[in-house]
Order: sequence, then C-alpha cells, then structure tokens
Amino acid sequence: MSESIADRRGRGRRPAAEVRAAVLTAAGRILLRDGMQAVTFDRVAMEAGSSKTTLYKWWPSPGALAAEAYFAHSRRVLDFPDTGDVRADLITQLGAFVRWLKDEGAEKPVSELVGAAQMDESLAHAWSESYALPRRELARQRLRIAQRQGQLREDADLDVIVDQLWGACYHRLLVLRVPFDESIVERLVDHALYGSAPRGAEER
Amino acid sequence: MSESIADRRGRGRRPAAEVRAAVLTAAGRILLRDGMQAVTFDRVAMEAGSSKTTLYKWWPSPGALAAEAYFAHSRRVLDFPDTGDVRADLITQLGAFVRWLKDEGAEKPVSELVGAAQMDESLAHAWSESYALPRRELARQRLRIAQRQGQLREDADLDVIVDQLWGACYHRLLVLRVPFDESIVERLVDHALYGSAPRGAEER
Repeated sequence: MSESIADRRGRGRRPAAEVRAAVLTAAGRILLRDGMQAVTFDRVAMEAGSSKTTLYKWWPSPGALAAEAYFAHSRRVLDFPDTGDVRADLITQLGAFVRWLKDEGAEKPVSELVGAAQMDESLAHAWSESYALPRRELARQRLRIAQRQGQLREDADLDVIVDQLWGACYHRLLVLRVPFDESIVERLVDHALYGSAPRGAEER
Repeated sequence: MSESIADRRGRGRRPAAEVRAAVLTAAGRILLRDGMQAVTFDRVAMEAGSSKTTLYKWWPSPGALAAEAYFAHSRRVLDFPDTGDVRADLITQLGAFVRWLKDEGAEKPVSELVGAAQMDESLAHAWSESYALPRRELARQRLRIAQRQGQLREDADLDVIVDQLWGACYHRLLVLRVPFDESIVERLVDHALYGSAPRGAEER
C-alpha cells in the first residue's frame, strides 16, 4: 500500500474490514510484545490509527479483543491428522500443541489470556467459543473415528481423553507452573490409551 | 475478646501474630465475598484495622496476600487416604476435590487465584509452592505405595497420573469452562487406571 493512514483519513473512512484487520494486527503485536496488560483500547486505537469509539463498538472488552487478535495471529491448520493410527495421530497433534506453546511463543499469551479470562466474562466467552471448544470438537471427531475402527473401547469417554491429554499440559502450564517439553507427549498418549494399572487388572 | 481494636491501639501495638491473623481473615473474607479484584492493600488494611505499611512489608502483592488468605481459610486435611485400594482412594480424594470446587465455594476463588497468577509472579509462586506442588507430592506418595504394591505398573509415570486426574478438572474449570460435577470422578479414575484402548491392545 502506498497511501498512509493519514492520506486515507483525509479522503474519508477506511472500509470497516480494513480497520478491523489493522486493529487485530496492532492488538496481536502488543499482546505478543508487551503482554496482556498492555492491550488497552487506548493503546490499540493509537497503534492501529483507528478511533477508540470503533473499538468500544466492536469488542466488549480489551480482553475479548486480545483473544480475537491472538486467534487471527496464530491461525494454523487445526485439522486433526487421520493416518488410520490413532496413537500416532494423537502424538502428532499433541506434539504440535506443545511445540506451539514452548517453541513458537504461545506459552505467555495463552497463559495470560486464560488467566485474564477468569475475571473477564467476555474474554472467557471468546476464548472458549472461538478456541477451546472448537479444538475439543476436532479432537472428538478424530477419536470417534478411532472408536468406530475399534482402536478405542466402545465405552471410552472421548471428552475424558481430551482432558487427559490437553488438560495435562494446561495443568503443568497454569496450575503447577512446572516446565515441560515435547518429551511428555508420548507418555501422555500411552497413559491415556493403556492406563497405568498392570495389564490384565480387572476393570470395574 | 472484650477489647476493640481502637482500645488496643490506644495502648500500643498488637502482637504481630494477631495482626497477621486479622489481615488474613479480612483478606479471605473479601476474596470470598467480592472476588479477587476487591483484594487490595487499602481495603484489607481498612477491614483488618492494620496499617498499609505492614501489608507492604509482609506481602509482595495483594495477589500473594489473597493466596495465603485462601490457604489459611480453606485449610483442610490434605492427607491422602490409604485403605489399601488405590482406585477407591483416588475416587475419594478426587471426589473431595470436585466437591470442594463445586459445592464448597472454591470454584470462583480458585479460578481467580490461578487466573491472576498468570500475570503476578509473587502470587504464582505462593500458589504453586504453598498449594499446588505440596498437593501433588501427597498424591505422588499415595501412588508410590500403590506402585510398590503392584496396583500400578512399574513404568507408570506418577506425575502423568496426577495430571490426568486433577489436570482434567482444571481443564474443564479454567480452559474449556464447561460445567462438571462429581459424576466425572469415577470415569476419570478408571480411564487413568485402565486406559481407553481395547483390552489386550499392544503397548509400545
């Protein structure tokens, strides 16, 4: 683009989609660089060259804006692999999640977004509706296929499996706050699939 | 006690232990009644009849004070039961945790404390050192006994089991933000012990 924001402003309003994109880019940049607490409507409006009124109109809170900016920034292929081997596919997908947290810079913004969500209803809503629940649904779909193919028991609770895998990572990240890395992934998947009781232990 | 705070003040300082107890009581009451954001040094000092300077001296942040107040308020027997049956004992202990969250009012303060910990290093430290890590150690000890007795496999990863059980609850509480209740407990324990693959599925 050869025109500056000031040039455009001089001639009239920018299209809404363009403003929206600029706001999300600015908010994402501030979140990643300076953290959640730096994402205020004031600061984002200034960096995006938009009006604060617009931001108030479009987002219920700076937290909700930060969440949407983060999803836009970190959009990635969410499709679960299906190679026919559920163990391998879970290791691939959970490994990608751990790398995303630990090597691709998501650890801090994700912790801060989930943290702030505990006291900001609109952020909580954006987080679970736009990110956490859709991701769980993708995992469920893959697990349902495995169940139909006999790789998971008929009475397996697919949501519990998701809690056991992704929940374990969030537990270390947010609650215990202990370091972990990709080496945990295979162990998590094998414990979820095969349990920790001796083989042949009677169930129920 | 027949003396008011003002009476005692008139005659000199209250003993430090007494002030500390009053501060923790006030902070716990504010946290439970009005939430994390209401726990400020100003407000706690006022309600406890103590000086703000004392609070600044004793606690690195209002968050750290809130965390300590919460532990003091909710002190409960943390000892893990040992009836000789690890499945039964895990169900008892995890059930107590879910009831504590869901029926005994801990859900909101726990969410808010863990949430605020993501942006407050001193609160994070208080939370993991005083609460999360000691609780994990108690669970580990119980699991180690079960492992020695052959109720868990020799190669079972005890920390992963803790992540699968408690982490699953925190996952639903903080990340997915979906409702759950005690009915989840038996399923979580059975999935952790027996896995979700068909019996006899080859491992590794």
